[in-house]
Amino acid sequence: MKINAKRLLDNLNNLKKFTDTPGKGVTRFSYGSEDIKAREYIASKVSAAGCSVHEDALHNLRIGLKDNSTHKKTVVAGSHIDTVKNGGWLDGIYGVCGAMEVIETLAKSGASFHNNYEMVIFAEEEGSNFDSTMTGSKFITGFYDESTLDSLRNDIGESLRDVLLDFNKKVDGSSSLDVSNIRWDFNRIKSMFELHIEQGPVLDQQKLSLGIVESIFGMRVIEVILTGVGNHAGATPMTERFDALSVAAQCITTAEDMVRSDPDKRTVVTVGKLEVKPNCSNVIPEAVKFYLEVRDKDRNKIDFYIDEIKSLIFDIAESRDVKCEMKEHSKSTPLRLNKRLMDKMVSKANDQNLAYKVMDSGAVHDACMIANFADTGMIFVPSINGRSHVPEENTDKADLITGVQFLLDIIIDELKEG
Amino acid sequence: MKINAKRLLDNLNNLKKFTDTPGKGVTRFSYGSEDIKAREYIASKVSAAGCSVHEDALHNLRIGLKDNSTHKKTVVAGSHIDTVKNGGWLDGIYGVCGAMEVIETLAKSGASFHNNYEMVIFAEEEGSNFDSTMTGSKFITGFYDESTLDSLRNDIGESLRDVLLDFNKKVDGSSSLDVSNIRWDFNRIKSMFELHIEQGPVLDQQKLSLGIVESIFGMRVIEVILTGVGNHAGATPMTERFDALSVAAQCITTAEDMVRSDPDKRTVVTVGKLEVKPNCSNVIPEAVKFYLEVRDKDRNKIDFYIDEIKSLIFDIAESRDVKCEMKEHSKSTPLRLNKRLMDKMVSKANDQNLAYKVMDSGAVHDACMIANFADTGMIFVPSINGRSHVPEENTDKADLITGVQFLLDIIIDELKEG
Repeated sequence: MKINAKRLLDNLNNLKKFTDTPGKGVTRFSYGSEDIKAREYIASKVSAAGCSVHEDALHNLRIGLKDNSTHKKTVVAGSHIDTVKNGGWLDGIYGVCGAMEVIETLAKSGASFHNNYEMVIFAEEEGSNFDSTMTGSKFITGFYDESTLDSLRNDIGESLRDVLLDFNKKVDGSSSLDVSNIRWDFNRIKSMFELHIEQGPVLDQQKLSLGIVESIFGMRVIEVILTGVGNHAGATPMTERFDALSVAAQCITTAEDMVRSDPDKRTVVTVGKLEVKPNCSNVIPEAVKFYLEVRDKDRNKIDFYIDEIKSLIFDIAESRDVKCEMKEHSKSTPLRLNKRLMDKMVSKANDQNLAYKVMDSGAVHDACMIANFADTGMIFVPSINGRSHVPEENTDKADLITGVQFLLDIIIDELKEG
Repeated sequence: MKINAKRLLDNLNNLKKFTDTPGKGVTRFSYGSEDIKAREYIASKVSAAGCSVHEDALHNLRIGLKDNSTHKKTVVAGSHIDTVKNGGWLDGIYGVCGAMEVIETLAKSGASFHNNYEMVIFAEEEGSNFDSTMTGSKFITGFYDESTLDSLRNDIGESLRDVLLDFNKKVDGSSSLDVSNIRWDFNRIKSMFELHIEQGPVLDQQKLSLGIVESIFGMRVIEVILTGVGNHAGATPMTERFDALSVAAQCITTAEDMVRSDPDKRTVVTVGKLEVKPNCSNVIPEAVKFYLEVRDKDRNKIDFYIDEIKSLIFDIAESRDVKCEMKEHSKSTPLRLNKRLMDKMVSKANDQNLAYKVMDSGAVHDACMIANFADTGMIFVPSINGRSHVPEENTDKADLITGVQFLLDIIIDELKEG
């Protein structure tokens, strides 16, 4: 069975237009107006193909084939449609368009299988609203529950509950919110696939078309607040300063040097978000808040570096008489994906003579949450120059098509299997 | 002649309430609604005392005694009423209230002198709107002119001209703007005094009540924009990163180490404002913009350090393949204040047995601009714990009173002098 490459690329190009920042990459946060438009676009396409759409209280979407039966197990494929601020046009939505191309191809073929097929759109994967990633799949797996609705807060202090109630009012005028039955019945899931761009340079550098993911990096994110003494930048001698920004700079430099010296050259450390208070050029910074994350595929290594970095930040701050508060912000455990699916994909890639590689994923994905409860596989296509989460994010058309055709082929195998 | 201490403190306490951030220090930007209220408060007080108020096109205010005559030379005292964001209740406005106390005391006394007395309020000293300090006194001295109205822009892109036209409409409904006659005729100025809080720790640590300023630090501010490559924080190995924030951190640490090692321990370097793009915890920072300033009383030292720091920033950025743009943002030349007035103040402080010190000012003031054209003197009172530009900014009442009485005494001497 062949996918419709033109339809796939048309869908990707149309969905790219739903952005809050035209001309500056794609900015489409969950529960925003562009998110609503993208959902409506997808729902109209799959409804036209005869599929049924089910939306849960978090606004995760499950879309099933007309002939799906409650007596069968289900093969699922999907990803997310939300983005980071000024992100790219493929992160997440490529896997959604792939899963949609699979459902449209299967619907059109009229073929019937031993198992059901569903596509899924996970809500709020990037954490752009609440600084917490994979919120949709965390509810689906029971990692988050009712209490999370109040504990997650966005930059302007609104809770996830507030945002969802607002969103519901806008979308269907309802004012209720019941998250008690979001959790999936994983006994009914045969397997789950997520197709995604690599977001790193490996496939592009090695000129390969496909990655079959073996391990996914875990991560720990800490929030650091340094509080010194704000003061006049001219009248305060260097010896009388408690400058939160220069302490933060020293922490960042030292943490990075430490991780760079690791012999494996695999662990990564990032400070991506940093805010200065009051942020005036002639005032010594009183406070700096930043997030620091460490990722690796070895949990012990993550813990080792986070612990070492926390201790060095504490020491640097203490030596400069700047107050330091640190707390764990979020984490995910590294994991190995399902061996049965991996072997199956490797064997199919060999059969098809594809230029592929078994590899790690440095990024976390909704697949990580699902993998704890169901057989899960991940497929990568190259990111040109390894760039992602930026407007320049891109992948060759031919690779986009190869990835989706491979997803369809592997899903058909799974659909046939008893 | 004695000042009215209660009236002085009442004025200070009343003016403190004109803030955009009640409970979080004083935020009163030039041309904002709290600025209008503060001006109206002051105008109503001095008008009641029979004084005349003249406002120029930049909204610098000159307030003269009823008996002032165009045939006499004028002694001027004043400062500014605008603040930094979440600043203190004394910076600037203490000198304005001091000059106002002098005019009210003189008006009430009915005494007549050889020279005129005027108080002045300089507009937009802090540069909170346009990131350019002493805008009012720069127009008064001809350092800024018509063209500056269009070149200065605030954070949302409005020019000084736009802001002034809006302000004029709000204040008196006018829609004209003529800056051609703001410049003072300095032949008519006998001397100028600025009374100010120290904004540093020296007087407080040495338990002195008064500072007589000898030198004012000059400064150079550079704007630095580092542009690396934004990328996914998990999928991008450390060896493939061009992280603008970690390069900025290294620049800040190195610049600070360099200046701290100076044997004089006098030069200061500050990065007070820094912004990260896109500023998401899971995205490697693509760009960082920051302002770095160096201050000293020796111009050669400022130039030496700025040049060294520019060269080290360039080298660090180049070694990490991050693009670096630097430009001069603003500068002021260090200067020595007028010797005649300094000697006069020292002699008076000795006569009065005041606990004083001849000292430098690390902060720049409108007095710096005026000092290039007229005999200028500056008087400091202590800042408790050396804190300024923050809500905690404070000075003992007794010192506030001592400073203003000293200002009155020295001004009367100047008024008498032929």
